[in-house]
Amino acid sequence: MSTLIERITGGDPTAVARAISRVEDGASGAAELMKQVFPRAGKALVIGITGAPGAGKSTIVDKLAAHYRTKGERVGIIAVDPSSPFSGGAILGDRIRMQTLSLDKGVFIRSMATRGNLGGLARGTVDAVAILDAAGYEKILVETVGVGQDEVEIVKTADVCVVVLVPGMGDDVQTLKAGIMEIGDVLVLNKADREGVLRAEKELQALLTLAVREDEWQPAIVKTVATENKGIDDLASAIEHNREFQRSRPELSERRRAIARWRILELLREQLVSEALNGNGAVAKLDRLANEVASKQRDPYSAVEELMKTEVGSQKSEVSNNT
Amino acid sequence: MSTLIERITGGDPTAVARAISRVEDGASGAAELMKQVFPRAGKALVIGITGAPGAGKSTIVDKLAAHYRTKGERVGIIAVDPSSPFSGGAILGDRIRMQTLSLDKGVFIRSMATRGNLGGLARGTVDAVAILDAAGYEKILVETVGVGQDEVEIVKTADVCVVVLVPGMGDDVQTLKAGIMEIGDVLVLNKADREGVLRAEKELQALLTLAVREDEWQPAIVKTVATENKGIDDLASAIEHNREFQRSRPELSERRRAIARWRILELLREQLVSEALNGNGAVAKLDRLANEVASKQRDPYSAVEELMKTEVGSQKSEVSNNT
Repeated sequence: MSTLIERITGGDPTAVARAISRVEDGASGAAELMKQVFPRAGKALVIGITGAPGAGKSTIVDKLAAHYRTKGERVGIIAVDPSSPFSGGAILGDRIRMQTLSLDKGVFIRSMATRGNLGGLARGTVDAVAILDAAGYEKILVETVGVGQDEVEIVKTADVCVVVLVPGMGDDVQTLKAGIMEIGDVLVLNKADREGVLRAEKELQALLTLAVREDEWQPAIVKTVATENKGIDDLASAIEHNREFQRSRPELSERRRAIARWRILELLREQLVSEALNGNGAVAKLDRLANEVASKQRDPYSAVEELMKTEVGSQKSEVSNNT
Repeated sequence: MSTLIERITGGDPTAVARAISRVEDGASGAAELMKQVFPRAGKALVIGITGAPGAGKSTIVDKLAAHYRTKGERVGIIAVDPSSPFSGGAILGDRIRMQTLSLDKGVFIRSMATRGNLGGLARGTVDAVAILDAAGYEKILVETVGVGQDEVEIVKTADVCVVVLVPGMGDDVQTLKAGIMEIGDVLVLNKADREGVLRAEKELQALLTLAVREDEWQPAIVKTVATENKGIDDLASAIEHNREFQRSRPELSERRRAIARWRILELLREQLVSEALNGNGAVAKLDRLANEVASKQRDPYSAVEELMKTEVGSQKSEVSNNT
């Protein structure tokens, strides 16, 4: 019988799905599995796709996936869906892709959402990408629903970041754009058959001339009408150009270093909290403290002090048991 | 000379600004300060305002603040701005309010952004709200730029959550709407002079009839044209109605409990990580490990193992020093 890692590297979708569930749930053995996965990953091109709601990200992801499929490449799609941190439920619209692409065995689609209070969405997504990579998917598309900080962080871990905009969005988009300049390697003006596309393009170009990137890459602006499959080839070329550009400069960029630092810290955070709540009665204590904070009998700071007290106590006794 | 907490409760804006900077930076003494602040907070009405980019949130916040000012109430405004977790820079568009409201001494405006990798935006925002509350600001408006998970979590800690929508947004908005049903106590259809407002209103009503809220509150739909100050009185009334409704049901809701739990965990996470990186040479080690992960010589999981090893080591020696 093959081990899970063997089945993953063999490209077995069932094994991939099981591995992703395991890391998503933070199941025991997940860390060991990922230590086997990482050395086997690194060949795929990971493309992050973000942008304002309504900009047409899903359609672009679908069409881009279809484009890669015509070239015979296997495609992994990870949709990062915002979900309530309180209910823990994922919100996934029934997308068109679910009907068309999901019948294609060369496409693996997975929706990722936060599980509970312990976070780990970012870590889970990065792990899922590595699993798909180890399983030999040539192109991995990571799509986010929102434009929040979490989503931006996740997209930035991709090799190439695509930001989708539409002409004629509101004033707040100015604010967004400023942030987008920092992350977008390729900028897509979707719904380019709409009025105002030339103005939007000029605005973007003006913003681009203002922005100075550490790596000196000049982000491309690609116009698409994704619903009609227009501009998708151009988008694929722009993505490829960015990748070639990156390959031509093998030195570690500050951005890669910052991403690695952030990944380590995310994982550290998750493991420390899970350790802290692992002790005898810690979860019950957390529930009691949460009730006290909710009813304003106690402030959160002293609640944490109380929680940390338990932890230090249990660690001390562990140490004395060992000696 | 008065202490900082005395100056805060005396309503001194300089003291408020200093206290917020202190908690934002996670400066030493911040936890002690907050333990003094929390018992003095709880009188203000905290209003969270979120919604898609371009929906007009900033304008609504400005007009609502002006509305409360005409009633002689002091208003605190906290703008939660998405910023890069890598550069750490805040993105704040030069908003109109900065020119008009900032001259009014009864209005305190503050922009909050993430500082570095250690997170703490959510915790910092909640702390800033408590400080303004203790300083006697009657209304506190918390506005988010994005609609990401972080922002949604922050807005949910408010007493009343306002979600701003505009007619005629794209398909992804369906996805957003589903999430919004869960958090919105008051739904605003802004730019209600636009085409499609009636259809949008009907859609929202249909969605509302599908949603079942634990607390049985029926979210109000308010139509506004914020730029023309239309509908702002209605919005203020709807917010007031929700508050009265909440007061009529004094029992702790599951939502309040979940929020308290989340606040404790956020704080715990921050303190554990900052402790873990407090040890001798831990930051240098993190940098070295980040380089190794960035250049794919090491996977993040074994990097964290390596980091945690340091920490446990230093704790053990501390314990043995104490005995």
